[in-house]
Amino acid sequence: MFASPTGAVVHYPLILKRFMENSSEYRFIKACRGEPVDKTPVWFMRQAGRYMKVYRDLKEKYTFLELCKNPELACEVTLQPLEVLGVDAAIIFADILLPLEPMGTGLEFSAGDGPVIPRPVKDRKAVEKLMPVNVEEQLGFVADAIRRVRKEIKIPLIGFAGAPFTLCSYMIEGGKSRDFTTTKLMMYDAPDVWEMLMDKVCTMLVDYLKMQVSAGAQALQLFDSWVGCLGPNDYEKYILPYSRRVFEGLKDTGVPVINFSTGTSTMLDLVQKAGGDVLSFDWRIQMDTARALLGKDQPVQGNLDPVTLFAPLPVIRERVHDILKRSGGKGYVFNLGHGILQHTPVEHVKAVVDMVHEYQHE
Amino acid sequence: MFASPTGAVVHYPLILKRFMENSSEYRFIKACRGEPVDKTPVWFMRQAGRYMKVYRDLKEKYTFLELCKNPELACEVTLQPLEVLGVDAAIIFADILLPLEPMGTGLEFSAGDGPVIPRPVKDRKAVEKLMPVNVEEQLGFVADAIRRVRKEIKIPLIGFAGAPFTLCSYMIEGGKSRDFTTTKLMMYDAPDVWEMLMDKVCTMLVDYLKMQVSAGAQALQLFDSWVGCLGPNDYEKYILPYSRRVFEGLKDTGVPVINFSTGTSTMLDLVQKAGGDVLSFDWRIQMDTARALLGKDQPVQGNLDPVTLFAPLPVIRERVHDILKRSGGKGYVFNLGHGILQHTPVEHVKAVVDMVHEYQHE
Repeated sequence: MFASPTGAVVHYPLILKRFMENSSEYRFIKACRGEPVDKTPVWFMRQAGRYMKVYRDLKEKYTFLELCKNPELACEVTLQPLEVLGVDAAIIFADILLPLEPMGTGLEFSAGDGPVIPRPVKDRKAVEKLMPVNVEEQLGFVADAIRRVRKEIKIPLIGFAGAPFTLCSYMIEGGKSRDFTTTKLMMYDAPDVWEMLMDKVCTMLVDYLKMQVSAGAQALQLFDSWVGCLGPNDYEKYILPYSRRVFEGLKDTGVPVINFSTGTSTMLDLVQKAGGDVLSFDWRIQMDTARALLGKDQPVQGNLDPVTLFAPLPVIRERVHDILKRSGGKGYVFNLGHGILQHTPVEHVKAVVDMVHEYQHE
Repeated sequence: MFASPTGAVVHYPLILKRFMENSSEYRFIKACRGEPVDKTPVWFMRQAGRYMKVYRDLKEKYTFLELCKNPELACEVTLQPLEVLGVDAAIIFADILLPLEPMGTGLEFSAGDGPVIPRPVKDRKAVEKLMPVNVEEQLGFVADAIRRVRKEIKIPLIGFAGAPFTLCSYMIEGGKSRDFTTTKLMMYDAPDVWEMLMDKVCTMLVDYLKMQVSAGAQALQLFDSWVGCLGPNDYEKYILPYSRRVFEGLKDTGVPVINFSTGTSTMLDLVQKAGGDVLSFDWRIQMDTARALLGKDQPVQGNLDPVTLFAPLPVIRERVHDILKRSGGKGYVFNLGHGILQHTPVEHVKAVVDMVHEYQHE
């Protein structure tokens, strides 16, 4: 017996068994490649975070950026949910905005208000001033954290970064945005400046993600969290070529790459054209509708509404089973449609892992 | 010559000509009915509002709720954009949340933070306490404003209300929400309470909208601004039957009713099933794709991204023409995919009206 990070006493052999089960087959990697699996793999975006008491305790001692930049702490946070939940993959604890600091825009996290970029990139001059990033020197702490985590776990570790659009939108808006007015206007009004900015971001992203694979990441996910603010035309013209460049640039790493986005359910065909081995999308489209659209050989990930995790267990079970049934099983990774929300009951997240693992595809 | 509300000197005959042109055919109503029109009709959601100096000047003297509740002022605001823009329809100045006050939840608008509902409706007890609304007595100021406007204009006047889901989400969350967690949980966890709440809101909505038609509204629009937070399953189960009840309840008014929503592009077939004579949707789907999906006999409205109005005129023109071309012309009302944003240049809005009116469908 030992005390788990949440303080609950857990039987050690049970955890060991779970780890063994998970590691024996790497069902997550197999599903990403469309290969047969013994059970449907499952992990959660933001599976380490504020909904867990162990994380909130650490956050009382350290700022968010301290946790990200200290490989020992980042490793600890990455590990926090693994034993408790029994998921099939870990994701390195980091933030999609970390590369903005070495690029020269600055990066702050104000309590409650989310990220603030002190020197936003609003015009040609600002884009020209952006600095090339030496990823090993300036973002090496992420690689260090990956190396530490790999020593501790037997399930695959996912590295990640923000997709070109989502990163650029933060750089341009200076933080979160509702309408993305300044970002869209740069596209419409100064397409050459937009191109220069996306170009610099793409170059950095390929280097940054390759470094993560070199350090031990066995899969990658690109987060295009806000690209759903665009219509299909704009996505095709201003985003697709750049996202594709990143996915193409990662092909020789050999690891599966997940193309994640939200609000893109009416342009999934275009998102698919951009690339990536696995498409991850939100709950605004039924899993079977999406699979029919994308073709049965396209591995997919998703797409439970994170709010569902607050519902009573029978409601959760019905919805989890519905998605699993619609998924068809093959080439499928269970996940939410976006990250776990604050205040989500940990026990519900854990229960979903069991529901997914216990489900028998017909 | 006379001074327009924006202070610019305008040739009166020009305005008169524009009014005559618009009134002679009521092309807006004809398009809503799928009948042939001489020119594509155009109006804008939030065409009266903060982007206009005349409105901001009034707002220095009166609060938002004062403007809504004083028929003389509401009439004045409704008229403000009409001459300046030359649109084909007016929409009564009001707020979708006005019915919440007589229902008993309270309603406040804090500067900058949007609406605050002081007594949100979170459980059965709160739903039971909601009061039936005597629309003539308690919301009669909207009818008064409609009567006043009708005396002043020759173009059709649109009445409106929030759709059942969007209204209930405000009532439950107590204001704006990002994830709609409490709203979704009432649906999932207490479907009977949800049903009781939606039932009360639907009853009020049918009365409220019928009163607007009796007062002179020649068309109606139901705003389901936030329903796109739901997946198709939830929409079909928890929303569609109630929205349908409102649309059915309005059929004997004889006026065209517009079913407006955003973020619903992957479930437009379900939104269509809910009812309404015209479907209005956002820019996340191409106009031709939507029309192919909905059938050529379904009148539609939309769907320019409001951010486009900040772009240079050639960019705006290209995008306006693209939508007009994809629309096919018949049974089509030009509009944005959502309301006009603050700081939008008035001259650009005006230019779009001319672009739409000048466009010749092939």
